[in-house]
Amino acid sequence: MKVEPVEGLPEIAPGDDLARLIAEAANLVDGDVVVVSQKVVSKAEGRVVRLDDVEPSDRARALAGGEDPRRIEVILRESARIVRLRPPLVIAQTTHGYVCASAGVDASNAPEPDSVVLLPLDPDASAARLRERIAELTGRTVAVIVSDSFGRAWRQGTTDVAIGCAGLSPLLDLEGERDRVGYELHATVIAVADQIAGAAQLVMGKLDGIPVAVVRGLDVAGEGSARDIVMPPERDLFR
Amino acid sequence: MKVEPVEGLPEIAPGDDLARLIAEAANLVDGDVVVVSQKVVSKAEGRVVRLDDVEPSDRARALAGGEDPRRIEVILRESARIVRLRPPLVIAQTTHGYVCASAGVDASNAPEPDSVVLLPLDPDASAARLRERIAELTGRTVAVIVSDSFGRAWRQGTTDVAIGCAGLSPLLDLEGERDRVGYELHATVIAVADQIAGAAQLVMGKLDGIPVAVVRGLDVAGEGSARDIVMPPERDLFR
Repeated sequence: MKVEPVEGLPEIAPGDDLARLIAEAANLVDGDVVVVSQKVVSKAEGRVVRLDDVEPSDRARALAGGEDPRRIEVILRESARIVRLRPPLVIAQTTHGYVCASAGVDASNAPEPDSVVLLPLDPDASAARLRERIAELTGRTVAVIVSDSFGRAWRQGTTDVAIGCAGLSPLLDLEGERDRVGYELHATVIAVADQIAGAAQLVMGKLDGIPVAVVRGLDVAGEGSARDIVMPPERDLFR
Repeated sequence: MKVEPVEGLPEIAPGDDLARLIAEAANLVDGDVVVVSQKVVSKAEGRVVRLDDVEPSDRARALAGGEDPRRIEVILRESARIVRLRPPLVIAQTTHGYVCASAGVDASNAPEPDSVVLLPLDPDASAARLRERIAELTGRTVAVIVSDSFGRAWRQGTTDVAIGCAGLSPLLDLEGERDRVGYELHATVIAVADQIAGAAQLVMGKLDGIPVAVVRGLDVAGEGSARDIVMPPERDLFR
């Protein structure tokens, strides 16, 4: 498996043809997994909010503490549910189902200092559009992952995970298969898409401004939605 | 970054010189990160328990439900704290501090059907010994990660993470650095070692019996303990 950063991409602005920029900067082949940081997908899709345009609700003001209540208001709008609150930290479940800090609302790498970037409205659809457009431009059949950096319970530091995908199965289910001594692997499901997103992050860096990487040499073509990764409530021990 | 499986390793037994087997099977160069699955480290270190030798306590019998109380007994012995219990699922914090299913006690890929494999007693020390022995045998300065497959809160599927490391910093702290528009990245810590472990898993597979992979082309040399990744209790919102 090789993981290569895609260098030379410009700053992404609303309306940019991100797939074309990627297709021109990377030398893609069939079977590649193209991992695209959520931040540039959101920017291309115009998912940016200027805080001056936000009127915080009473609830946002009450929760804000010393924080900017406009930012909290944006987080509340992106949230289906607040999971934990310890100002300035808000862990929320997004409207897509993902549990993460600030419901994915992020001020770092925003296009202007007083704005925040939201997650794509439908990151699977974003991945599917990128995949189709790349096929149209290059004739190559690739998979696409839209990635974001999420914190974890019990462990420090973020790892990049898949919040959208197209052209691959995000989960590899080994249920019923047997290991080398014949023990049945009952509950072994591997979060392949999350591991691919994390591998890509290793070459992207956070400060380097490299928002795309290509993972080559894996055999992961398939179908599925990154929302399949969300733990169903009835199996979630940590709601 | 390249990630290559190390193929051709034999079944590992207690007392095996695992570092020698790796050094002979892989063509290591300075700067490589050698990711070794916990399972083979534990086997080489004799961290295997035959269930026939286990007398379950009253507590293990009470918790077992329909499960084998001897297996529950082993889990309790490896646990500092039970985090969640929904039989047959036990989420526990190990004596090292890691929160994972069954306190890392695993029956899959065990050397015999009626035995279980425990986590290494001190996975950082295991990694350090492998690293030193590899240096001794090959003259190469590598980093070593001992990896295991952990489930996550809120997300389905396991990802491999680092439970032991030597020769690298498991966390990359960007605090105070600035992104491209000058926004200070206040709380950005990246769990580099976990992402490397996950990348390695992608080429190891679970059934293929490939317990070692080499990650090449990263600049991660440093110092640190995988226990640094454990969230300190005062910052842990999910105890």
